[in-house]
Order: sequence, then structure tokens, then C-alpha cells
Amino acid sequence: MSLNNIRVVLVSPIYSGNVGSVCRAMKNMGISDLAIAAPRGEWNLIEARMMALHAIDIFEKRKEHPALAGAVADCGLVVGTTARRGLYRDHAKTPRDLAVRLLSAAKKGKVALVFGPEDNGLANEDLQLCTHILRIPSSPRYSSLNLAQAVLICCYELFVDSGIFEVPVERSAEASSVARQQMFAMWREALLEIGFMEEDKADHMMLGLKRILSRGLLTDKDLRILVGIARQATWAGRQAKENLKRKRGHKS
Amino acid sequence: MSLNNIRVVLVSPIYSGNVGSVCRAMKNMGISDLAIAAPRGEWNLIEARMMALHAIDIFEKRKEHPALAGAVADCGLVVGTTARRGLYRDHAKTPRDLAVRLLSAAKKGKVALVFGPEDNGLANEDLQLCTHILRIPSSPRYSSLNLAQAVLICCYELFVDSGIFEVPVERSAEASSVARQQMFAMWREALLEIGFMEEDKADHMMLGLKRILSRGLLTDKDLRILVGIARQATWAGRQAKENLKRKRGHKS
Repeated sequence: MSLNNIRVVLVSPIYSGNVGSVCRAMKNMGISDLAIAAPRGEWNLIEARMMALHAIDIFEKRKEHPALAGAVADCGLVVGTTARRGLYRDHAKTPRDLAVRLLSAAKKGKVALVFGPEDNGLANEDLQLCTHILRIPSSPRYSSLNLAQAVLICCYELFVDSGIFEVPVERSAEASSVARQQMFAMWREALLEIGFMEEDKADHMMLGLKRILSRGLLTDKDLRILVGIARQATWAGRQAKENLKRKRGHKS
Repeated sequence: MSLNNIRVVLVSPIYSGNVGSVCRAMKNMGISDLAIAAPRGEWNLIEARMMALHAIDIFEKRKEHPALAGAVADCGLVVGTTARRGLYRDHAKTPRDLAVRLLSAAKKGKVALVFGPEDNGLANEDLQLCTHILRIPSSPRYSSLNLAQAVLICCYELFVDSGIFEVPVERSAEASSVARQQMFAMWREALLEIGFMEEDKADHMMLGLKRILSRGLLTDKDLRILVGIARQATWAGRQAKENLKRKRGHKS
């Protein structure tokens, strides 16, 4: 699977908590290969665990390298992320632009997504090692994303494009036109019986109701509910008429 | 602008730091209207500030409401986010599915994105107040996103769809076919002059070179660089030949 060949590389991250958050974001998006280039020293494991939660396995399996070159040595494409302008950066692409290309390369070998330190981002010498530059869309009023947020967006675009995820959708098909017409006929009857409308206004009113009920999917299950309402309303309308008649009978 | 009408509503968030991260994610994506429904009590301002950084203004301008109903009362569409299954949740749509619809509604009025507490997500009674249910694509192996990460993805999809952001791209157009041909002719000459290839292999080799140099955009600026290389290589090749000739002259 392509996502197995996506490596997230963090260059000299400052906060262990952020690295933990990165692990969670990666695992949320089905990516698990983490490398740290030029680590700054000891990790604060409490912070890392607190933010990684169920993704701490990714932190534990991380590879550490003295420099970025080692962390990306076996990768075909190497994508550097940056929020800054200038130099190569003006040739940046968005995560969505690059997703297809990266996933296709990841079918054949390792691909790296490289993120710089929280304070300054990737240095020019790091960008030199990248084959592509990526820029996450963000507001010019505050363009700098938190490290884990940047990782999340990149991984999310790859995950969505991988097509693994299917939102649990309504699987029932649209109800047939015949079934709809029957349902609407029953509603027409019901609305007449309960005295909501008179026969001369009925067609106009039914157009309005059809408009409301046709804006989204309408399944057989939905129709059963709507038919049930109509049937019961018709019953109630008839009872009501009978009741009125009886009361008038008593009076007279 | 539509993004001004997008309100992020957090229901009873637990961690002030998460709320700070939410503010940063919102500001990164050009969204600034934050409401808190049923707050749990005092905020930890130090944590909130530490995570919000330059987005603390969003936290300071938040509106607090005793219950979700109050926070969404003036909103047309109300979108509840959930990672769980069951109930209405199986009619969930993804942020990308909903983005167009939400932005279009936000042209005319307020739209709410509602996020539940970190531990349990939105309760059924909260989902009752929602017109739409949203599910962020995530891995079945770890589907629950951090609160600020969930907010980020939703705001990111709206921000990208709003079309405000343009990645700083190469604005120069493709170089003309004539200019390319001239450049390749000069490279052909250069590669012959430096002795990289013989005349009989030249056409074949040039096809390979064209393939390599035609994979991406090739601008006039790129051509100037390539032409410069060819010109200089041709010069060097001729100097080299002259030098060889002179040396042979000396020998003989």
C-alpha cells in the first residue's frame, strides 16, 4: 500500500509534545514511518505520550539520523514544506497538487515529507535536498501552522487521495419514481382528510411538498416512514370528521 | 466574504490548550468567529495563549453560551462533527463533500461547525440540533482526531474552496517551441563539441535529453540558463580541442 512508503521527516523539532501530536496525526491518516533528522537531544517522554495517545508506537519506532541527508537517502521524491517565500519556494505546490504524484511514486519506493523546526522552518541547505517544495494553503494574516497541523494536512491529502476511506454513507438507492408517486398520492389524500387544504388548492400545495421532499436522497426506508405518516394522518382525519358528525348529530 | 460567516462552536472543551490550538488553526484558515457552548468553568489562560500564539485575539473575542442551542440560534446550517458511527451518523458527509454547500450558505448568513468535547464527542442531544453531520476521513486503526486537528481539517477545506489562497507559483509562461528548439540545437552542438557524443548517436541522445527537460514547465528564464550552459560548454569544447591539437603539435 502506498501509504506505507510515505515517510514523515522532522528536522530538529523543538517540542516533544509536538512530535507526539505529529504521531497522532500520522496514525489518524494511516501513515506510520517517522524519522527525526538532527535531533536536539533528550526527549520529554511524558509530553510526547500525552499528545500521541494511541499513536505512541509510531514515536517508539522512529528512526533518528544525524542529518537530513541520512533520513532521506533511500527516498525517491523528497518534499520539503515551507511557509516562507523566496528562493526555490516560489515554485511550491499545494499538498493537493502533489498528492497524486506522491502516491504514484510511493507505489514504487519511499517518499519523504520533510518538515523544519517549529521556529524557523527548513533551512536553505535542507531545501537543497528536496526534489519538490510544498506550501500549505493558509491565510496571509497568519500563515504559519503548528508543526503537527502542517503534518496533518499533508498526510490528510494523501490519505483522502489513497481512496482507502469511505465515509459511512446511506447505501440504499433512491426510491423508484412509482413508489414516490404513490407516497405523494397518499400525502395528498391525508392532507385533504385532515383539512390542511381544499381540493382546489391541492395540486399547488403538493408541488410545494414535492419540492421540499425532493431536495435530497429519498430511499425506500424514507418512503416507508412518509407513507406511514400519511396513512395515520388519513385515519386521524377520518376519525375527526366522524367525531364532528357525531357531535352535530347529538346537537340536532 | 463567506469565511466571515463561518462560526466554530466548541461544546464543553476540556483543555484550554486545545482551545488555543483551535484558535490558531482557525486563524491559519481565515476563520475568526469562535463560540463556546456550555463551558466547563475557568480557563487556563497560560495554556490557551501558549497554543494560540498570534491567534489569541480569536480566543479573547469568543462568545460563551450556556448551551449549544444558544450558540447556533442565528445559524442557518449547523454541521455537527463526529468520529463515531450509528444513529444519524451514518448519513455523514466529508468536509470536502460539504464545503461548497457550506460556503454557499455562508454567503447569506451564519453557518456553524460544531465540535464535541475531547473525550466523548457530540452527544445525541447535540446532534439533534444539527442540520448536517460531518465525518473527517481518518484511519480505522485510529480514527479519533485531536480537537484542534479536527477543526483544522474542516476550516482548511472551506479555506481551500473559498479560492482566496493562491500558491505563489511560477508566473512565467512556457517558453515557445521555437525558443526550445534553438536551445536544444545549441545543446546538440555543445554535446558534440565536448565529445559527449558522436554525430551518429546525436539524434538518439537528443531525444533522451528532450524527454528529461520536457517533464515540467520550461520558462524563458529556464531557457536562458540552459542556453548559457550550452554556449559555455561549446566554448570549453573548442578550447579543449585546440589544446589537444597544440599538444599534438608540440609532440610531433
